[in-house]
Amino acid sequence: MTIAQDGDLALFISRDYKTFLVQLREGQKLHTHRGIIEHDDCIGQTWGQDLKSHLGQRFLMLEPSTADLVRQIKRTTQIIFPKDIGYILMKLSIMPGATVVEAGTGSGGLTLAIARAVGTSGRVISYEMREEMQNLARKNLERVGLAERVELKLKDVSEGFDETDADALFLDMAEPSLFLVQAAAALRGGGFFGTIVPTANQIIRLLEALRGQPFGLVEVDELMLREYKVVSERLRPLDRMVAHTGYLLFARRIATSKPDQEQTETRIDDQELNASEE
Amino acid sequence: MTIAQDGDLALFISRDYKTFLVQLREGQKLHTHRGIIEHDDCIGQTWGQDLKSHLGQRFLMLEPSTADLVRQIKRTTQIIFPKDIGYILMKLSIMPGATVVEAGTGSGGLTLAIARAVGTSGRVISYEMREEMQNLARKNLERVGLAERVELKLKDVSEGFDETDADALFLDMAEPSLFLVQAAAALRGGGFFGTIVPTANQIIRLLEALRGQPFGLVEVDELMLREYKVVSERLRPLDRMVAHTGYLLFARRIATSKPDQEQTETRIDDQELNASEE
Amino acid sequence: MTIAQDGDLALFISRDYKTFLVQLREGQKLHTHRGIIEHDDCIGQTWGQDLKSHLGQRFLMLEPSTADLVRQIKRTTQIIFPKDIGYILMKLSIMPGATVVEAGTGSGGLTLAIARAVGTSGRVISYEMREEMQNLARKNLERVGLAERVELKLKDVSEGFDETDADALFLDMAEPSLFLVQAAAALRGGGFFGTIVPTANQIIRLLEALRGQPFGLVEVDELMLREYKVVSERLRPLDRMVAHTGYLLFARRIATSKPDQEQTETRIDDQELNASEE
Amino acid sequence: MTIAQDGDLALFISRDYKTFLVQLREGQKLHTHRGIIEHDDCIGQTWGQDLKSHLGQRFLMLEPSTADLVRQIKRTTQIIFPKDIGYILMKLSIMPGATVVEAGTGSGGLTLAIARAVGTSGRVISYEMREEMQNLARKNLERVGLAERVELKLKDVSEGFDETDADALFLDMAEPSLFLVQAAAALRGGGFFGTIVPTANQIIRLLEALRGQPFGLVEVDELMLREYKVVSERLRPLDRMVAHTGYLLFARRIATSKPDQEQTETRIDDQELNASEE
Repeated sequence: MTIAQDGDLALFISRDYKTFLVQLREGQKLHTHRGIIEHDDCIGQTWGQDLKSHLGQRFLMLEPSTADLVRQIKRTTQIIFPKDIGYILMKLSIMPGATVVEAGTGSGGLTLAIARAVGTSGRVISYEMREEMQNLARKNLERVGLAERVELKLKDVSEGFDETDADALFLDMAEPSLFLVQAAAALRGGGFFGTIVPTANQIIRLLEALRGQPFGLVEVDELMLREYKVVSERLRPLDRMVAHTGYLLFARRIATSKPDQEQTETRIDDQELNASEE
Repeated sequence: MTIAQDGDLALFISRDYKTFLVQLREGQKLHTHRGIIEHDDCIGQTWGQDLKSHLGQRFLMLEPSTADLVRQIKRTTQIIFPKDIGYILMKLSIMPGATVVEAGTGSGGLTLAIARAVGTSGRVISYEMREEMQNLARKNLERVGLAERVELKLKDVSEGFDETDADALFLDMAEPSLFLVQAAAALRGGGFFGTIVPTANQIIRLLEALRGQPFGLVEVDELMLREYKVVSERLRPLDRMVAHTGYLLFARRIATSKPDQEQTETRIDDQELNASEE
Repeated sequence: MTIAQDGDLALFISRDYKTFLVQLREGQKLHTHRGIIEHDDCIGQTWGQDLKSHLGQRFLMLEPSTADLVRQIKRTTQIIFPKDIGYILMKLSIMPGATVVEAGTGSGGLTLAIARAVGTSGRVISYEMREEMQNLARKNLERVGLAERVELKLKDVSEGFDETDADALFLDMAEPSLFLVQAAAALRGGGFFGTIVPTANQIIRLLEALRGQPFGLVEVDELMLREYKVVSERLRPLDRMVAHTGYLLFARRIATSKPDQEQTETRIDDQELNASEE
Repeated sequence: MTIAQDGDLALFISRDYKTFLVQLREGQKLHTHRGIIEHDDCIGQTWGQDLKSHLGQRFLMLEPSTADLVRQIKRTTQIIFPKDIGYILMKLSIMPGATVVEAGTGSGGLTLAIARAVGTSGRVISYEMREEMQNLARKNLERVGLAERVELKLKDVSEGFDETDADALFLDMAEPSLFLVQAAAALRGGGFFGTIVPTANQIIRLLEALRGQPFGLVEVDELMLREYKVVSERLRPLDRMVAHTGYLLFARRIATSKPDQEQTETRIDDQELNASEE
């Protein structure tokens, strides 16, 4: 992967920090505000190099990261931010080989990140009710070469998911508290559940709705990302930051007989973790 | 993966939130403060179920998440927190099949998370100078069944890494600013670089040291995780939180001829991202 | 105020950072874990000096700040933190000469800070229903010499406040949304209203209750204080911080005919502030 | 203060949230983008009322808060934010009657807030080297009726302050670490010192410079303010926030013989506060 090859995704970054995501194809051209880049001049070059447009303007050629891809997708809706995606993948334990169900697909940003994380041995099934959203997500996934790894379903999840043994399930919907029964039915025992909502009201409704459902080890978190100016003589946070993307809620699918009340109300104290084995 | 099997890792959680991580083995027993659990009573059961100890105490049996495993490792040093690990995996684009170099190994917490993310098709090479740390990390990796996926090297990285084409490289060392030349040599063109340090002084030294080195698109970030009480009638953040785990620095390995000064000083503005293809 | 005098409040800080707040009185003694300090050895000394106990242990003698006093009060309830008090005083525009109403008194921490801010020309009226709380607050105020500046009332504010022209009114009560009518009646036109609550649910109820009431320019804020290790070679935030003290809500008392809906829903954008005078 | 009077400061807020700060004067007019307001129509009215311009547009008439005044000052430099000002006033224990020294004056935002807090019995002395800045600050102070409470000095503080017994001193300068000797000389024993700087590098230099100086109980803090959307059905933080205004450093002026090293390095632990009196 040291050399850019025909078919690879490439990210070009101009000196004024415009970025261009393209799939390299013999004979094709990338048109930019700073001139044309011939794909043939890129194929066979090492990544991380400066290449010049026909106007002599320099562009850095890089393989896009997952975060780059998520930021580059065409979108009509709010996407989930990389800071949240990274944490979601950790908390849902999404690894190569996993079967992951998602609803709704939206523009496909999280879908894309999950698809990369589960690898060729994993499965991603993503539900969406709005056909035009699904089409947009499909295009986004095709553009980054991940379409065949994702099964897109045009379906209302209020009628239930088709799956019953998902390792993990994530809801990115307007009112996830309405779909907990369906989510529980789609998850295998011990499966990982997650959702993201913008308002405190929705978290309150989710916590209420979880009471009757077979979920335990409930957690609600928010992540704040603070970026710094990267000048060694004047190290300081950027002036402004994103204050809020969403509240994240995570839980584990447990057996139907709910253990007891406090299961959902207390979190494991790291300090007390202690294993003794025979 | 619906049914717990001989050889599986299992996490048992008591009603007072003690957790026990064990590998299920026919004929073995788990001794806890609330009685003994026979592995034979667990093997063949579905995950997410309550099982009882010989004292009748209930334990929830779950497959551990990556975050659970990281928290469960035996450690003599500070580990990297799950919130940071998730973001590191995103920013370093660590996916199935990737070749990732790490130094130092420490207790092996991040090593473990990377090993799970790269899957069986990936490679993790982790350097450590202190033999007892390496032994601890090896034990931690063996315990979770990931030892064969990681190559542990007992070596001082100031003499350089053996690798030259790593997709990503992460430094978790006392003074990473001293090892940027070695890191650059180990990374392929366009490779992902990351490090975490506790103090602002170290970030200042890193930014200074990066000036002469073939890295671009430098970012410095910190992530703050705020956890909430999961009680629907009284939604509020927990009283206290971890205020600081570390400053994260990310960069891309670029070609040796450093483009220009501001490359390292400005970050891409999301608002300006815009692709046009032919 | 350069010299400590008979009757002054003094804060003694031992080398192991225990603090002792006393009123200096001729002939009295301060007993500490590190020996006895004779008040007569302190009176007449300059502030900021080291004094020695009869065991030769050194103590720094300082005048207490408002923040010191708030932290030193005897309390049976959660006090409001200095970070929040400072902001409350700013937002409620509490200055020398102001008339400020508060309910409930609690341990008197905020009462004390308000009393200092309004000076001898101001008035503080503080309501409390629980006699033992009022007694505790009275003792705390007497101890710091502010009792005569505060009128403590033992009264249920659900029956209304006695005042009708308060410049500012602050509610520190279990459910402030129930007392907005009474608060509005106690405030003069344009008066400042504030409250603090621990949960999001209470903020939601406050915003609902405000709808029918003569308040405008509503704001909800939270303040996070991050403290740093003060070591120049290793500058970094402390490991842990207070994640949450409370949500603050501020509003202005407006004329009864509520202007229009969005008055309470939008906040003034600083960018648009612009004055033109003739 | 229930009725607006000739000479009062008034803040007019239009329905599109433009704000206009004026001193009410008989016979004068306020020209706005929504019509003219006659001061004579305002004088004698109660605060908090809606008044109409000659075009029938409604304006809310309020007395400005300290925070309003700070935001309304004409400025050519970055002002200190209300969240920081409130905390500074608390930490420096600025109360009616205090003598406070400040450098530099800048646009006079903090000067104004201090002048209001010390009342008519207090003194504010503010140093500035740039004449045009001082003139701007003077105009800002005159406009809000506080000019006579502040002594503006056009002077380079590297030559020292004229005062020797200030209760509190605040530095808002490009490099405050260079003026600690002068600050120490201006403060009475036990006096309060504070400063704000934008970068971590400056805090590092301040901590280094403090080592040889007669200051103790050093603290470094930052305050993050998160504002919420005030809609009861959708309670959530605003999308974006100010990520950083500055690092605050506070210390107490102690006697010249510096106690010992750790005095500056540890902060008082609230948990250990405990007083015993005789």
